[in-house]
Amino acid sequence: MALNDITDTICALSTAPGTGAIAVIRLSGKDVYTICSKLFRATNADFSFDTALPYSIHHGYIAGGDQIIDEVLISIFKAPQSYTGEDVIEISCHGSEFIQQQILDALVSEGCRLAKPGEFTLRAFLNGKFDLSQAEAVADLIASSSQSSHDLALAQMRGGFSKKIKELRQKLVDFTSLIELELDFSEEEVEFASRTEFYRLLDDLETELAALIQSFSLGNVIKKGIPVAIIGKPNVGKSTLLNTLLNEEKAIVSEIPGTTRDAIEDTIVLEGFSFRFIDTAGLRASEDQIETMGIDRTWTKIEEASIILYLFDATRDSYKDVETAISEFGEVLGDPQKRLILIGNKMDLLTELPHGFKKFVEHETIFVSAKRKENIHMIAESLLKTVKEHQISDGAVVSNTRHLEALQKALEAILNVREGFQNKLPADLAAIDIRQALHHLGEITGEITTDEILGNIFGRFCIGK
Amino acid sequence: MALNDITDTICALSTAPGTGAIAVIRLSGKDVYTICSKLFRATNADFSFDTALPYSIHHGYIAGGDQIIDEVLISIFKAPQSYTGEDVIEISCHGSEFIQQQILDALVSEGCRLAKPGEFTLRAFLNGKFDLSQAEAVADLIASSSQSSHDLALAQMRGGFSKKIKELRQKLVDFTSLIELELDFSEEEVEFASRTEFYRLLDDLETELAALIQSFSLGNVIKKGIPVAIIGKPNVGKSTLLNTLLNEEKAIVSEIPGTTRDAIEDTIVLEGFSFRFIDTAGLRASEDQIETMGIDRTWTKIEEASIILYLFDATRDSYKDVETAISEFGEVLGDPQKRLILIGNKMDLLTELPHGFKKFVEHETIFVSAKRKENIHMIAESLLKTVKEHQISDGAVVSNTRHLEALQKALEAILNVREGFQNKLPADLAAIDIRQALHHLGEITGEITTDEILGNIFGRFCIGK
Repeated sequence: MALNDITDTICALSTAPGTGAIAVIRLSGKDVYTICSKLFRATNADFSFDTALPYSIHHGYIAGGDQIIDEVLISIFKAPQSYTGEDVIEISCHGSEFIQQQILDALVSEGCRLAKPGEFTLRAFLNGKFDLSQAEAVADLIASSSQSSHDLALAQMRGGFSKKIKELRQKLVDFTSLIELELDFSEEEVEFASRTEFYRLLDDLETELAALIQSFSLGNVIKKGIPVAIIGKPNVGKSTLLNTLLNEEKAIVSEIPGTTRDAIEDTIVLEGFSFRFIDTAGLRASEDQIETMGIDRTWTKIEEASIILYLFDATRDSYKDVETAISEFGEVLGDPQKRLILIGNKMDLLTELPHGFKKFVEHETIFVSAKRKENIHMIAESLLKTVKEHQISDGAVVSNTRHLEALQKALEAILNVREGFQNKLPADLAAIDIRQALHHLGEITGEITTDEILGNIFGRFCIGK
Repeated sequence: MALNDITDTICALSTAPGTGAIAVIRLSGKDVYTICSKLFRATNADFSFDTALPYSIHHGYIAGGDQIIDEVLISIFKAPQSYTGEDVIEISCHGSEFIQQQILDALVSEGCRLAKPGEFTLRAFLNGKFDLSQAEAVADLIASSSQSSHDLALAQMRGGFSKKIKELRQKLVDFTSLIELELDFSEEEVEFASRTEFYRLLDDLETELAALIQSFSLGNVIKKGIPVAIIGKPNVGKSTLLNTLLNEEKAIVSEIPGTTRDAIEDTIVLEGFSFRFIDTAGLRASEDQIETMGIDRTWTKIEEASIILYLFDATRDSYKDVETAISEFGEVLGDPQKRLILIGNKMDLLTELPHGFKKFVEHETIFVSAKRKENIHMIAESLLKTVKEHQISDGAVVSNTRHLEALQKALEAILNVREGFQNKLPADLAAIDIRQALHHLGEITGEITTDEILGNIFGRFCIGK
């Protein structure tokens, strides 16, 4: 069955799996009313699917044969004013898994097909309710677990990013028409398109594409959490610090049931940004020189981190000790994309200033007591400062690897166009590169799609969306 | 706060906890419109909560301050035409836990209170939408995992049982008025109420109460599953048989995602009845005589069982062996409420008929090969036969311990009435007993309630119902 076959009627549980007070089963397709009219017995004798108003709710029973399955409410949405753009019914039933299953069974026996993951949103896309990047944002929105990733997904779903891409694409289209005009008259060697205007457009496109590409590192950390590693010698208090940081945040998470906190291990959310602590337990093994494998793994972990907290024992280590220890990490820490934060622990046990205190201060070292939870807020502030330094003012942020690749290919094509002009290549070659760029930008919003792209995107969705 | 305080506005996630495509947050109370009007921005500029029709759905955004939380649909229900009998709004949002939490936070900050378990149904009861036994059935319905327990709960929710209790109560009320009339004229020693009529009424009440009380053992097994124990000497194949039985059923459970099968350990559902296999692993320990504690526990388990499958090795054990082994279980198996089924395993390895084959046949022994899955269906049929023998024709079935106790107390009071009449006690004493019976029947449907009863009942509910 082709992905874009939307001739049949699909159904799925749309609420979270498991037992709840209520559950919602969603149906979409041309036969929803025919199918439901066989199963739904309205309380109001005058009810009919033909005359029911769109956006109306009706009470009744779902019955398979003579057997009443449940007392339900059904919500009616009529094409094209629905999530999918098709006729849609949502059945709100009691939330037992048994009932959910019975209703789905009854729907299937009347001709519904069980929806594949993301199939409702795929239909919304195919019916022009969303473009592709908006559809992708729906999955991101559902998966969001911090304010910043939520805001990013919501902005993308509401079309901010799509608008930006469409503007860029429109500029390219205008560009193309100038080029094509020139091609039509190419035998007469007339240059209709002003080269200055061309170059200005190319500059604009390059700048905007590059900015979007650059926003990816921010977009990606927003979506996945900013990777942070805590490293240091044994017994300096790395685990205590991690626990203190995690508890710090736990204390400010509200006590309302249903909070996501438990599911996410070793992640803290500060002002809506999530920081993901990378497990560097292996680093201790590196010091007793037993497992080279273990050490390698630790290096890889440190390489993943955007922020490295180097923890030392302020009662023991001088600035020189710290400098030497850090130099052992060599190149890994030399990456300008990484931020290193020095943290002196056991402040509560200090009897005198650490050796090289001035140097520590120059390097903005934070002194804390992980055990007594002193100055921990300074680490939080420092983490946040790092993120905010990277934040860009322009709204559009790329957070999706697929979009990143398409933007990179589009930029490459634009750079080829410039090179072509500079080398005085014929305009029809430039036109090919521009079409390439148009193609790649079109892939982002879904003006250009293949079954493979659609399969990859919608396969990531949960069932029922 | 008293349980019956329904002056504030409550909210809760009503769908299953966790991430889904969508989630539904329910609000109920007098301020739902005021609260929602602060958070909901309708897409349709003409929308207002005052003019919105009941049972209508509206598209828009939920925003806390300037921050958009989510794109949502809201469903509007107006008192008294709602689940709780109050003004109700259901917010259908994207199913991320982050969004669920944000919306609940926003509602709370605007003055909603987070609902306690069952509080929506409690309000429905307090506002006269349901009686108490119907409200209890809502929780049973959500917890149902087999056809029979589902049907039982649905019937109770639809009021079949309540109607029966109300009829009984009405008979008692009529009875009382006759008695009271007699009391009014007691000084004149006139007997208005005919003794014959009294006795007939008492007979009726006794019969019906006794039938309801008797239905409890069926109701209870329907609700909780029929407890089955597999016992026998070591190495006769008890585990293999259990696995074969469980797999047998797994194979007929449909493959539709969301089936409840995984959550329920060692339970099989046959024709809608669930059979719950009791863990009798401890029985093996009883044979090497090590742990008396372990043996005691096994006896207790066997006592719990309604059906006992005694498994023996058909290639080794004669009928005499089986008879001797069973006699060791002594009184436990003597209970007439229990059914013992003899099962001879390893049929596939038989080279000759077991000793005492005729006796085995007389006792309806089932010969199987658990390993080769032969004749397993005969065990299933035998289990079902046992349940069906206990099934009663009358529709009303008691499945709730609280109802059982109330019915027993009501019956006791009725028996006292009869005794009083027979001993020619004054009518005013009979009146006291009748009031007792009225009280206990009233407790079932909730005409009589206390905070303690309500607390016990609604505390069992899930949040959001």
